[in-house]
Amino acid sequence: MTRILITGAAGGVGAMLREALQGYAPLRLSDLSEMAPARDGEEVVRCDLADRAAVDALVQGCGYIVHLGGMSVENTWDVIEQSNLRGAFNIFDAARRLGPARVLFASSNHAIGFHTRETLLDGDAELRPDSLYGLSKAMGETMARYYWDKFGIESVSVRIGSCFPKPRDRRMLSTWLAPEDFVSLVKRIHEAPRVGCSMVYGASANRDMWWDNSHAAFLGWVPEHSSEQFRAEVEAADPPRAHDDPAVIYQGGIWPVAPHTGE
Amino acid sequence: MTRILITGAAGGVGAMLREALQGYAPLRLSDLSEMAPARDGEEVVRCDLADRAAVDALVQGCGYIVHLGGMSVENTWDVIEQSNLRGAFNIFDAARRLGPARVLFASSNHAIGFHTRETLLDGDAELRPDSLYGLSKAMGETMARYYWDKFGIESVSVRIGSCFPKPRDRRMLSTWLAPEDFVSLVKRIHEAPRVGCSMVYGASANRDMWWDNSHAAFLGWVPEHSSEQFRAEVEAADPPRAHDDPAVIYQGGIWPVAPHTGE
Amino acid sequence: MTRILITGAAGGVGAMLREALQGYAPLRLSDLSEMAPARDGEEVVRCDLADRAAVDALVQGCGYIVHLGGMSVENTWDVIEQSNLRGAFNIFDAARRLGPARVLFASSNHAIGFHTRETLLDGDAELRPDSLYGLSKAMGETMARYYWDKFGIESVSVRIGSCFPKPRDRRMLSTWLAPEDFVSLVKRIHEAPRVGCSMVYGASANRDMWWDNSHAAFLGWVPEHSSEQFRAEVEAADPPRAHDDPAVIYQGGIWPVAPHTGE
Amino acid sequence: MTRILITGAAGGVGAMLREALQGYAPLRLSDLSEMAPARDGEEVVRCDLADRAAVDALVQGCGYIVHLGGMSVENTWDVIEQSNLRGAFNIFDAARRLGPARVLFASSNHAIGFHTRETLLDGDAELRPDSLYGLSKAMGETMARYYWDKFGIESVSVRIGSCFPKPRDRRMLSTWLAPEDFVSLVKRIHEAPRVGCSMVYGASANRDMWWDNSHAAFLGWVPEHSSEQFRAEVEAADPPRAHDDPAVIYQGGIWPVAPHTGE
Amino acid sequence: MTRILITGAAGGVGAMLREALQGYAPLRLSDLSEMAPARDGEEVVRCDLADRAAVDALVQGCGYIVHLGGMSVENTWDVIEQSNLRGAFNIFDAARRLGPARVLFASSNHAIGFHTRETLLDGDAELRPDSLYGLSKAMGETMARYYWDKFGIESVSVRIGSCFPKPRDRRMLSTWLAPEDFVSLVKRIHEAPRVGCSMVYGASANRDMWWDNSHAAFLGWVPEHSSEQFRAEVEAADPPRAHDDPAVIYQGGIWPVAPHTGE
Amino acid sequence: MTRILITGAAGGVGAMLREALQGYAPLRLSDLSEMAPARDGEEVVRCDLADRAAVDALVQGCGYIVHLGGMSVENTWDVIEQSNLRGAFNIFDAARRLGPARVLFASSNHAIGFHTRETLLDGDAELRPDSLYGLSKAMGETMARYYWDKFGIESVSVRIGSCFPKPRDRRMLSTWLAPEDFVSLVKRIHEAPRVGCSMVYGASANRDMWWDNSHAAFLGWVPEHSSEQFRAEVEAADPPRAHDDPAVIYQGGIWPVAPHTGE
Repeated sequence: MTRILITGAAGGVGAMLREALQGYAPLRLSDLSEMAPARDGEEVVRCDLADRAAVDALVQGCGYIVHLGGMSVENTWDVIEQSNLRGAFNIFDAARRLGPARVLFASSNHAIGFHTRETLLDGDAELRPDSLYGLSKAMGETMARYYWDKFGIESVSVRIGSCFPKPRDRRMLSTWLAPEDFVSLVKRIHEAPRVGCSMVYGASANRDMWWDNSHAAFLGWVPEHSSEQFRAEVEAADPPRAHDDPAVIYQGGIWPVAPHTGE
Repeated sequence: MTRILITGAAGGVGAMLREALQGYAPLRLSDLSEMAPARDGEEVVRCDLADRAAVDALVQGCGYIVHLGGMSVENTWDVIEQSNLRGAFNIFDAARRLGPARVLFASSNHAIGFHTRETLLDGDAELRPDSLYGLSKAMGETMARYYWDKFGIESVSVRIGSCFPKPRDRRMLSTWLAPEDFVSLVKRIHEAPRVGCSMVYGASANRDMWWDNSHAAFLGWVPEHSSEQFRAEVEAADPPRAHDDPAVIYQGGIWPVAPHTGE
Repeated sequence: MTRILITGAAGGVGAMLREALQGYAPLRLSDLSEMAPARDGEEVVRCDLADRAAVDALVQGCGYIVHLGGMSVENTWDVIEQSNLRGAFNIFDAARRLGPARVLFASSNHAIGFHTRETLLDGDAELRPDSLYGLSKAMGETMARYYWDKFGIESVSVRIGSCFPKPRDRRMLSTWLAPEDFVSLVKRIHEAPRVGCSMVYGASANRDMWWDNSHAAFLGWVPEHSSEQFRAEVEAADPPRAHDDPAVIYQGGIWPVAPHTGE
Repeated sequence: MTRILITGAAGGVGAMLREALQGYAPLRLSDLSEMAPARDGEEVVRCDLADRAAVDALVQGCGYIVHLGGMSVENTWDVIEQSNLRGAFNIFDAARRLGPARVLFASSNHAIGFHTRETLLDGDAELRPDSLYGLSKAMGETMARYYWDKFGIESVSVRIGSCFPKPRDRRMLSTWLAPEDFVSLVKRIHEAPRVGCSMVYGASANRDMWWDNSHAAFLGWVPEHSSEQFRAEVEAADPPRAHDDPAVIYQGGIWPVAPHTGE
Repeated sequence: MTRILITGAAGGVGAMLREALQGYAPLRLSDLSEMAPARDGEEVVRCDLADRAAVDALVQGCGYIVHLGGMSVENTWDVIEQSNLRGAFNIFDAARRLGPARVLFASSNHAIGFHTRETLLDGDAELRPDSLYGLSKAMGETMARYYWDKFGIESVSVRIGSCFPKPRDRRMLSTWLAPEDFVSLVKRIHEAPRVGCSMVYGASANRDMWWDNSHAAFLGWVPEHSSEQFRAEVEAADPPRAHDDPAVIYQGGIWPVAPHTGE
Repeated sequence: MTRILITGAAGGVGAMLREALQGYAPLRLSDLSEMAPARDGEEVVRCDLADRAAVDALVQGCGYIVHLGGMSVENTWDVIEQSNLRGAFNIFDAARRLGPARVLFASSNHAIGFHTRETLLDGDAELRPDSLYGLSKAMGETMARYYWDKFGIESVSVRIGSCFPKPRDRRMLSTWLAPEDFVSLVKRIHEAPRVGCSMVYGASANRDMWWDNSHAAFLGWVPEHSSEQFRAEVEAADPPRAHDDPAVIYQGGIWPVAPHTGE
């Protein structure tokens, strides 16, 4: 089994993946923050993804990179550029020079957050970021295309909805990505004979869907969980909103109307 | 729960809905014909939808209008225009002035009846009415777009196939909309946080399908019934036809070749 | 030469056409208002287009109908429905029963007025009316499709921009249809061996264009005039507006934000 | 029940069909090779499909032709042209002159084999043959369109993936068409009231899919088998390949890089 | 200058080209029929294009093949297959084995003749042949794609309208390709640094156009002639037809309704 | 007249613009390098676009920004990110906070350089950068979309081909943008009542075109120059290349095959 590098392994999704992939393949785990010590089949490496030499060392010997690292919420452009753009560049360029390695690029629904929720998005949807964070993810997807066209580096950009143990509000009933479904997607991308340069929406088999993954049927990924089990609980805790409330209009929820950090 | 206005409540579909929605929400029931007296949670109002003031009174206080009223089969232009166009205008305009209210506009497969049955229709299918009735439904869908673009009145146009207790002929094996499935659609449109200006094909999960509702996946409506249970019975009673019989060529069945009323 | 019926012949465009087509073909001129007396090769018939029998008499013997008649600006739905929908129905249905006659249906830019001006519209543009008037024109185009699909009645819907002797404001620098160009279009539709059921945007060869007629290249219509000759004069008289002024946002100008008549 | 002609009835798929359709309808079985003797409800006719008179006799009295005959693998152009093009022409032309008969044309994934496997193909996919064999199948599909447009001969081109008792290599895990699923498709095409001129991808409900049959939903064909049951066995026997191995790049497997026969 | 092979050089178009290209490049002229003797810079070779060895000798040493040879009107399938399919195969395969040579494949408007004339065709138009001749041309275009995808053989399929000294009937006013415009196209394809696998509609800058060549703008071919100069003469000699006359409905004129040869 | 800010005003294109716009509007000229002293109607400000405060001061008081500044050729990611991404962010964000100002974003053909030259690109072409430089330009276009969707900042991304006094090689015969044509485009974007968020290909009316600007017809920009006047001179100096030479395959010329800077 190819060694898998997981960046951002100390974060919520990263830590969950670490557990789920124990024993599946040798893992190299990286984060800027402290992580639990390495167990069998694991290497743990603290690393600033903005440091090119450090990233090179990280990527060396890995055939598959699950790139979750960087800033996962809105921030200033300075922070976003440093964490997300420079980080993504260092990863893709190391995958080229030291690989080839296949990359799962953790993109986000905020890369397409300005679409309204009554608009079904498929593999050709226009990038419409709703935040500087989302902009960096959209830019990362274009970077993935560049590394594919020019150097043949395979990647799948996963526009992750909301990957938490359970949905936290009404919007997440649509965007929820069950951790188990993300794990199965990470494995499918690992095991597929070829992924080219693809994009997948990261959502479970929820009732109300905004995204159509049929263009990626070749991956054979079929989510098996649904937010429906949490509906009653979520709806009880989160009051309904008017149809023209931004939280209801946009796929990105309130992000399209949120100010820049610090303003 | 928002009060629901059902127009055409004395018709087959209307009466079925009335029963099914008992206790679900307060209902206001309207028809030109006599209806059974009001029960708990019901108001019964006889009303000519061509009468603007009467429609205003009807709409007042309702947040959701299931507009089934008007002529539901072919007739002369005079009748169709009066019943269907003027009626739809009065409903939409009252929804604007006295609402905003969300509208379920009962459109019809006859708004797209000139497409052949080997043509899969999706959310972008061209309007190709097969009758003056179908023309009025197509026009009503354009009216829905106008009220959305200009006034933000939400609506879902439902191109109803054949909503009867069971399919009556071979064609209806494809177009059948189980009453229970229509009820669940009516509820989904009521409960969705936002519907924008949408269109849904009204058919159950039948085996041979001409329509693709994936563009409306955000509604979360999944029909659960199928005409398949009635196939043997229907096929025994309705002999097969040649592939170039109009009843078999067109999605609208024989309507595309039917003369105008009275000719 | 086939006899040509011009409805709305007392209006500005109608009167212009009457002059321009003198001697080109026998003309039957109709309007609700009084018209100048018939000259050689002309018949003059006052007629209410809402009167079916009168329209039948009008259409009898004509092979080509230039249907300009009806309300040409915004009004109440009662008036619009009576003048524009009933009128169009009477015309198309007479063309079917007493013809076949080919129809030039005077549609309008207000049938697509909600599109922004930076959106190029072609033969597949969605109907997005900006007014009840525009809605009636959009509906008339669907009626044209019905009469073609079901009865083979040929028609061209012309989405007329602004057909005046010269542009009256900055917006009309884009939408202007020189009278001479409309005349050549009327003739091209008359002389074309076949027009099927087509749509043409009615604008001259102006500098800043929102519409693409390439789908109708088979007609061989090439406008030869441009609003550019009037630019200096128009710009001097009409001050510029901000980019987010509705008059500048929408193809329909201020119609998308105009209230209903009388409100 | 209409008599069914099966050409290529001595081949693997043909012989399988012969068994499966026993008792379903009267069968006429044809091949260039020797076949088992006729049983009840069967006729067995040895025939060279390149012989027009012989094909005429074959088609006479059949309402449905399952045209499997011809060369089913790569060969020289001389052989391919004679077996596949002339054969297809004789079949379609006999279906016109002696029928009308409905035709199931056995096309192939090699008619679209140059598409990469990360490209989802639907009803509009471009023909991109990967071999002279695939070229003849692509040409046959165009022939089907000609016979439909000009003579109204109905046909369904089935782009068969890999119709064997079980998948033989990793690629076939995606392209496998379970014999039972092909049988159900053959029956659906027989029984459908109308098929027009359609195309269906012939694959079972496998996990990793390259093809989207939603455009043919009107047929009501839903494959019920999956290659998943054979995955472990196949993967054990067939080692994985690099993502840039032609066998993994192309839908046609190694055919796109195979030389012409004899070179 | 690369040596140019012209097949079909004794035909009308071929002979015209021969004259026009005198002195432009060394020419090899081939036909089944007798041709005028070779002049300076010319080779004249009688050749049956169905003879593979003869075609090989023909292609040897040529960098550009203008393939006009074969049957240029409707005939039986036997003749069409032999002349047009086998001939095209021999040309393309020789271009591969003995070249690479660039191919101008003389396709035809009859490869798309079933489209109606009010349908604008562009680079994505569906193949809809109207005759066995047209079918062979459509098949040849698919062959061109195969030789490009698999072997990198460059080609341009030119869907020639009507290449005569002047248009012969009303339909040709739209389809006319002035000989001078064809000559300039032949040169542009010769001189372009790269043509890939392209398709161009072969018509002059006529008034009423059915075809859009913008997808091939990279070639820089701009026809400079128009049928308009012949309109009066042609219209005087060829009476107008009804809009539902096949000669007026279809781009292929009466070919879509012509019987097979000998029937 | 609104004050115009030109960044990169010391570069070739910037200096040309400075001359051309003398007297057209008040100019503020900025560059990292030294510039000629300010003349009447000019302000000259040296400024590092990576310095947010300096950019704020630059943008203050300008209604239109012609953003040419940054690195205009390939370089390391460090340099590109700093010059082009941070620079673009500072410009767009200042246009939002201190404006609103309209932005002409100088994008590049290298943002779409991986398309082949036989592929016509229009307003929907996919971003396919061929270099880190091109990647930064593609990212800048996505940034423009973000500032439009979220803050209503108008912009036009101009994918400049080759803006030099004359074309320097054969490829530039297609990509050449005459300085005078760029000047007229800069003015059209300045004067247009509304530009929304648009994209224009920056090439003159050259003979062999790869780009289609019809989607931007609303701007009324019609280039008036052509590289044809320089063809003989350019072709004499630059020998032709094979059709499979990268310089001939890709719209980006040899950039798609150039290594990263320093490798």
